[in-house]
Amino acid sequence: MEQIENVKVGPMPPSQFLKPFRLEFTQNGRKRFWDFVKLHESVSIIIYNTTRNVLVFVKQFRPAVYYNTAATAQSVCNEVQGEIDWSKVPPSSGVTLELCAGILDNPKLSPKEIAKQEVLEECGYDVPLENFQYIISYRSGIGVSGDKQNMFYCEVTDQMKVSEGGGLASEGEFIDVVEMTIPEVRNFMSQELVPSPGGFLFGLMWFLANKAPAEESRSGN
Amino acid sequence: MEQIENVKVGPMPPSQFLKPFRLEFTQNGRKRFWDFVKLHESVSIIIYNTTRNVLVFVKQFRPAVYYNTAATAQSVCNEVQGEIDWSKVPPSSGVTLELCAGILDNPKLSPKEIAKQEVLEECGYDVPLENFQYIISYRSGIGVSGDKQNMFYCEVTDQMKVSEGGGLASEGEFIDVVEMTIPEVRNFMSQELVPSPGGFLFGLMWFLANKAPAEESRSGN
Repeated sequence: MEQIENVKVGPMPPSQFLKPFRLEFTQNGRKRFWDFVKLHESVSIIIYNTTRNVLVFVKQFRPAVYYNTAATAQSVCNEVQGEIDWSKVPPSSGVTLELCAGILDNPKLSPKEIAKQEVLEECGYDVPLENFQYIISYRSGIGVSGDKQNMFYCEVTDQMKVSEGGGLASEGEFIDVVEMTIPEVRNFMSQELVPSPGGFLFGLMWFLANKAPAEESRSGN
Repeated sequence: MEQIENVKVGPMPPSQFLKPFRLEFTQNGRKRFWDFVKLHESVSIIIYNTTRNVLVFVKQFRPAVYYNTAATAQSVCNEVQGEIDWSKVPPSSGVTLELCAGILDNPKLSPKEIAKQEVLEECGYDVPLENFQYIISYRSGIGVSGDKQNMFYCEVTDQMKVSEGGGLASEGEFIDVVEMTIPEVRNFMSQELVPSPGGFLFGLMWFLANKAPAEESRSGN
């Protein structure tokens, strides 16, 4: 369980992590502008452990989701963000279930090589590069960031497990590895609100349609 | 075709559209902070026209996607964003295909009522409220915004078409309505890079798995 304390929110000072830009342009003769942030291109990986027929995901505390849930629950609008009563906001409301993922921050590595590295760092599987199947690329956050997301699929076995995973402690990552059977995945998707991004839901549907063993599929409903 | 001219990009001045915040907190005993932006909760709608068996989407120019594509193509990093040669960036590279969607900016209307309003404004169909089926809610932009997205499905007929759609001119919206047959949708999804968000891909998979007429599904492959 996450322990989240001493929460404070305020306007962002100049930041090395989030760089907001303004694009000015004339569209069809009309002057416009648009404010957005620049994010790194990234990879995400659907991991299927064929030894035990489980999908492997990561779970982590996401401050932006935590803030959003709190602000919505307490009907706090933008202007009075200082007034959230954080003692009433359970840390679990900011915890998301996601595909193993990472940003393309090393120009010397291909997206596939970064994917391999993330599967090792976050989930502890040392997987041969040829096990990674490219699925599709799409745009994330089209309104506010428009960054490119590249999705891969890989199958792993228990023999490839070389560490606990959990991300790089040096980068302050607190990541839990989560395993789910196919019926559990179907159950997860039947919730009203899933604590996951839209691309994650696509990845699950893609897996169920293209990779899930037939007998497992049927038992799931 | 979009005409995009006089493009300029620079650091964002104080903005009423994009408000960046910093959340400070102690996680499991370790002091951290996270920079993010606050976005509105929103709705998106998968629209299926049963008169002509086509899905109805919207297409629009997205400045954040345009910038991102240009910066990636010309290998421009954050620090030298002024150096993009915009004459070499086709406006089409910023055009996305999306579900009809809108933000929850009127607290007096339910998400379903906002969905109905958006289908009318953007796509020109006047659809009874009871035609809207709630599908699922998920988190968009978990790293940077964490906003909640609510997805609906509705079936429409040509008889419900009352206007051209295209969004509110008063809000400076330039939105094209696009129709696709089911084989066209499958073809779209077989591209390497789709100019659409992950939630859009999920919506297409959901439709194909749950709503697509059987004969159409089969003809698509």
